[in-house]
Amino acid sequence: MAAFHCLTFLTDYGLEDAFVAVCHGVASQIAPDIRIIDVTHLIPPGDIWRGAAVLAQAVPYLPAAVHVAVVDPGVGTQRRAVAVEAGDSVFVGPDNGLLTWAIAAAGGARRAVTLTNPALWRDTVTATFHGRDIFVPVAAWLATGVPLDRAGEPLAVPDLVPLPRPAFQLTGGVARAEVVIVDRFGNAQLSLPGEEAALAGLVPGTTVTLGWDGGETTLPFATTFGDVEPGELVCYRDSSGLVAIAVAGGNAAERLGLRRGSVLTLTIT
Amino acid sequence: MAAFHCLTFLTDYGLEDAFVAVCHGVASQIAPDIRIIDVTHLIPPGDIWRGAAVLAQAVPYLPAAVHVAVVDPGVGTQRRAVAVEAGDSVFVGPDNGLLTWAIAAAGGARRAVTLTNPALWRDTVTATFHGRDIFVPVAAWLATGVPLDRAGEPLAVPDLVPLPRPAFQLTGGVARAEVVIVDRFGNAQLSLPGEEAALAGLVPGTTVTLGWDGGETTLPFATTFGDVEPGELVCYRDSSGLVAIAVAGGNAAERLGLRRGSVLTLTIT
Amino acid sequence: MAAFHCLTFLTDYGLEDAFVAVCHGVASQIAPDIRIIDVTHLIPPGDIWRGAAVLAQAVPYLPAAVHVAVVDPGVGTQRRAVAVEAGDSVFVGPDNGLLTWAIAAAGGARRAVTLTNPALWRDTVTATFHGRDIFVPVAAWLATGVPLDRAGEPLAVPDLVPLPRPAFQLTGGVARAEVVIVDRFGNAQLSLPGEEAALAGLVPGTTVTLGWDGGETTLPFATTFGDVEPGELVCYRDSSGLVAIAVAGGNAAERLGLRRGSVLTLTIT
Repeated sequence: MAAFHCLTFLTDYGLEDAFVAVCHGVASQIAPDIRIIDVTHLIPPGDIWRGAAVLAQAVPYLPAAVHVAVVDPGVGTQRRAVAVEAGDSVFVGPDNGLLTWAIAAAGGARRAVTLTNPALWRDTVTATFHGRDIFVPVAAWLATGVPLDRAGEPLAVPDLVPLPRPAFQLTGGVARAEVVIVDRFGNAQLSLPGEEAALAGLVPGTTVTLGWDGGETTLPFATTFGDVEPGELVCYRDSSGLVAIAVAGGNAAERLGLRRGSVLTLTIT
Repeated sequence: MAAFHCLTFLTDYGLEDAFVAVCHGVASQIAPDIRIIDVTHLIPPGDIWRGAAVLAQAVPYLPAAVHVAVVDPGVGTQRRAVAVEAGDSVFVGPDNGLLTWAIAAAGGARRAVTLTNPALWRDTVTATFHGRDIFVPVAAWLATGVPLDRAGEPLAVPDLVPLPRPAFQLTGGVARAEVVIVDRFGNAQLSLPGEEAALAGLVPGTTVTLGWDGGETTLPFATTFGDVEPGELVCYRDSSGLVAIAVAGGNAAERLGLRRGSVLTLTIT
Repeated sequence: MAAFHCLTFLTDYGLEDAFVAVCHGVASQIAPDIRIIDVTHLIPPGDIWRGAAVLAQAVPYLPAAVHVAVVDPGVGTQRRAVAVEAGDSVFVGPDNGLLTWAIAAAGGARRAVTLTNPALWRDTVTATFHGRDIFVPVAAWLATGVPLDRAGEPLAVPDLVPLPRPAFQLTGGVARAEVVIVDRFGNAQLSLPGEEAALAGLVPGTTVTLGWDGGETTLPFATTFGDVEPGELVCYRDSSGLVAIAVAGGNAAERLGLRRGSVLTLTIT
C-alpha cells in the first residue's frame, strides 16, 4: 500500500480533556510529517449513528487518507478492531458499524483485516483507551506505508458488522423518511435522496405537506433558505444531496421537535 | 500575486458537524502544503457582527495569508462573493460586511473582485454550502499563486458592502461607547479606543462612573485585572487597545447584564 | 538546546474568540515550520488545577516539544513567567503551579529561567494577554533553537511555585483518595495509583464499598466498563494508571455528585 500524507480523525472524545492531543502526539511520533484533519470530536459519547453519519458526509471531500474513527462504547470487550480498504483510503476503527456508511461513500470495502498484530500497537495497551493504544498507532503505521496485511488477520468483507441505513419509502406522491442528522443550525437532514424525491415530483417550486408525530404543516420545496422569508420553514435538497428541512435564519429541529430517527411524511400538494 | 503559505478560516459552522473538516479537505487537495489556521468556527449562526469583530482582532497577529471567512445568512441568494486584497493578504468571503473591519485592520482594500469564475469553484456548486463549493476552493487556488483577477470580475472598492463601526463619543469628561464584543471570560470590550480615552483623562489611576441601562456604578481604571481584588469590577485598556470592563476572576458581562451593542457612559470622577 | 519540531499549547482561552488563533499566528511567524498540537483550550477560566492535570496526562504521549500552557489568573501582576527544561522538552508558562505535574511527568525539572529578556517578546507587551505577547513568542523562539538561558535569568528549580498533588492514603484495606479530574464522559479519576491500589488488594475481580459525602455504594473493581452492564457503576484502573469510577455508558460524576476534590473511601469487601 502506498503511503498516505493525511490522517483524519473522528471521535466522541470531546475537546476539554487531553484525549485528542494524546492521539495527535502518538500519530506524529510514528508519522512525523503526516497532516491530521480532525473531522470532529464532538460526537455525543457512544453515539455510533451520528459518528457514522458525520464521517460519511465528510469522506467525499477528504483527501486519500487513513481515516481513524473511534466511537467505541464496547472498548475493552470482544468487539473487533478493524482496518478496511475502500476507494483510495483506509478506514480504521472498532467493528461496530461506525465505519459502514463512510466505507460505502468511499466506494465499498475491498479488503479488511482485524487489528491483531501487537507490533503496530503501543507497547502497553490499556482496556479503556484503544484510540491511543491501538487505532491511532496502527493508522499512523499504515500511513507510513506499512501494508494492510501486516496489521492483522484477513477478515471477509461480509463479516464486517454493518450499520443499517435509515430507510425511505416513496409511494404515489408520498415520501416517508427519517431524520438522519440534525446539524448545528438545526437543519434536519432526511434519509430521502434528492434524486429520488425529484422523480416523485418533489422539486423546487412545489409545495409539501409535512407530517410528523408533532403535527402537520405545509411548506415550500425551494432551492435554498434564502428563497423564503426569515423565520419560515423550507424543504430543500441539501449540500449532501439529501432532502432536508430548515427554518431560514432559525432552527427547524427545535421548531418542529425533530431529532435523529424522527419519522416524517412528505406529500406533494 | 505571490503564493501564500497560510490560509486562515473563520465560520459559524460549529465543531460538531463535518463542515469544517470538509473545507480543510477541499483546501488541502488544492494546496497540499498549505498551513491552515482556524480563527474560530463558533461564531453564533449568522452573527456577522461578531464574525467581523473576531476576524478584525485576529488579523494583525496572523501571517500573510488568504483569510477565508464565512458567516453567510444570505447563502444562495444574490449577495456577492468577493476576494479583496489588503495589506499583505487576501480576504475571501460573502460581501455582507463580514470582512469590513478585518480589511481595515489590514490597511484597507486595494483591489476587489467578485467570485464569478467557476473554473476556481468545485465542479458542483450547491445552494447552501458555498464555503465548501466556492469560498474555500477559490481561496486555496489564490494561495497557490493564481492571480486575483482570475477569480472574477473587478469590483470597485467603494462598492463593497460596508459594516458600520460601533461609534463612540467623547464630550467633556464623558465617554459614550458600545460593547463591541463579550469574550469567553465575560470581559466587555468597548468601541472606545484606549488612546482616545487617554486624551480625555481616562488612564490607569483614575476612577470611572459607569452608566448603563442596568444602573450606575463606580470602578477604577487600572492596568489589569490583577490591580483590583478578585470579584471587583475594573476598567482597563485591553490587549487590542480598546477600553474594556472586566471583573477580576469573574464575568463582567453577566454581572452587569452587558452584551454586544449595550451602550455605556464613562465619566471620570 | 536543539530545535524542536513541535509546540504544544494548553490554555483557558476557549474556542469562540480569536485568542488561540492569534497565538498560532504569532508562533508560526517566528517558527514557520513548527507543528502545533493544541492540548486543549477549554480549561475553565483560571482553573489551574484542571490545567495542571490535563497537561500532565498529555505529556507522556506528546513528542519532544516546547509545551506552552497559559492558565493565568495573575496575568499582569508580579507572578513570574518561566521556562523549565524537563525530560526532552521545555515547559513555558506562568509560575503558578500550572506546570508542576507535567514537569514531574516529564522526569522533573533540570533547569529553569524567568522570562525576563524582552528580546524574545513581542515589541509591545500588554498587561492582559501574555500568552500572545510573552509566552508564545518565547516558546517559538526556543523551538527555533534559541538557548534557554537567552530567555532570562536562571531560577533555582526549588524556587518554582509548586502545586500540591492530591493525596491518597492506604491503611489496612481502606483507601482514601480525591477526585483529580472528571472527564467528558463523567469518569472520575482518583488520586490513587492503580499499582498502590493493587498492593492493597484492589484488583479486578474484587468488590469495593465506595463512601463519599453523598452516600455509600458497592461496586465491582473490573478491567473496563464493558465488564459490567450498561448503567452500572464500575471501579477500574484507567488509561493513565489511576483508579477511576465510571458508569458503563453513563456519567458517574453526575450520578454520584462527584467533582474535582471530592473525597472518597474505597473498602475491599
